[in-house]
Amino acid sequence: MTGTIYLVPNLLGTVPPSHALPQRTIDIARSLIHWVVETPKPARAFLKTLDVATPIANLDLRTFPPAPTSKNLTTLLAPAREGHDVGLLTDAGCPGIADPGAAVVAAAHSAGIRVVPLVGPSAVLLALMASGMNGQSFAFHGYLPVKPDARTQALRAVEADSRAHRRAELFIETPYRNVAMLEAISQALNPATLLCVAADLTLPSETIERRTAAAWRDHDIGRFAKRPALFVMQAC
Amino acid sequence: MTGTIYLVPNLLGTVPPSHALPQRTIDIARSLIHWVVETPKPARAFLKTLDVATPIANLDLRTFPPAPTSKNLTTLLAPAREGHDVGLLTDAGCPGIADPGAAVVAAAHSAGIRVVPLVGPSAVLLALMASGMNGQSFAFHGYLPVKPDARTQALRAVEADSRAHRRAELFIETPYRNVAMLEAISQALNPATLLCVAADLTLPSETIERRTAAAWRDHDIGRFAKRPALFVMQAC
Repeated sequence: MTGTIYLVPNLLGTVPPSHALPQRTIDIARSLIHWVVETPKPARAFLKTLDVATPIANLDLRTFPPAPTSKNLTTLLAPAREGHDVGLLTDAGCPGIADPGAAVVAAAHSAGIRVVPLVGPSAVLLALMASGMNGQSFAFHGYLPVKPDARTQALRAVEADSRAHRRAELFIETPYRNVAMLEAISQALNPATLLCVAADLTLPSETIERRTAAAWRDHDIGRFAKRPALFVMQAC
Repeated sequence: MTGTIYLVPNLLGTVPPSHALPQRTIDIARSLIHWVVETPKPARAFLKTLDVATPIANLDLRTFPPAPTSKNLTTLLAPAREGHDVGLLTDAGCPGIADPGAAVVAAAHSAGIRVVPLVGPSAVLLALMASGMNGQSFAFHGYLPVKPDARTQALRAVEADSRAHRRAELFIETPYRNVAMLEAISQALNPATLLCVAADLTLPSETIERRTAAAWRDHDIGRFAKRPALFVMQAC
């Protein structure tokens, strides 16, 4: 009898767990001893916040590498094969969504281990919901290219995609490049294309603004500097 | 000073609210008097489960039509313009995601009303996380066509999209057509294409299975009949 792998969403910043995690997610995470985590330090900080039942030092924390080999995956999932429940945790948000961890989940399916996703915060989902754009049809692209020419080209391709499929298009940028991204967007896109920026989601400093590419040109975008943000775009 | 519109996720079925909603979501929903809802009956049932502070009969519930006019939207958001906080609620899951409600959010942005998305269950997000497929790049297509030929064509187009962009592709089907959809998938797709079916998410009967299109042919698919399900596909 194998154990279950629980996919445990992490908080998106420093907020009380009850702010963004259901009691069921908290209760299950508190009870687990075996963990597969992206980075041990933030994992321990999260588990401490949750006030887990077992002393942190006695937990079995195994770190998954960015591109795990099948040998890595066998070791990571050994406790689950032996009948123990295991938690999968990344540094922020939902494992495997705009975040690593999917390879561990795929390996669990292959090994016949039951996979149970728990409810918690996802910046992608919250940004889309808050954008008021098309949530019946949307695409998430992860990071766009960094070099200015390639970025402009990618932004225009995404915009063309949005127009062709009448769908919302989401992407992310590392916080210290947010301002460069916003400048590129306001210049590259059709003036009427809608852009929503959602920064610091679930945190007290949460900021969600939606306007046309043209209107973004007239706004102070410096205030988005160095804040984790999602970009949601829809062409008209 | 305008109010705030809170986007309140509804439960995905009959479970205790603490199972799928953070305490913050429950506390905010309990305190609201003004609501914009998809359907009054399930809205009242949800608010009763939450044990809201105000007697249900005294709540201001306004129903949003499937395609609200700008006059409808003005009426729906009147309490927020007058300074009251308002909750937006659909019949299941997150407002605006695989669900109506986006037009209300868009109108709130236009009226300068603050939009705050609350954490809760989304079948799309949970299915993607549990699929172990590519959550760094994915697309959600809503419903595919119903007629067999058009459905097969759409499935193959989505599969080609997945192969070209190396991304996960998600879609839904009305529960009573799940079995027909699974049969179509197992016949239409490349035998090696991966398909994950996630049914009854967050409920005690939750079932999540992932295998190749070829392997689905040998499985009893009848047990997915009439259960709300998400389909996640990835071509190899």
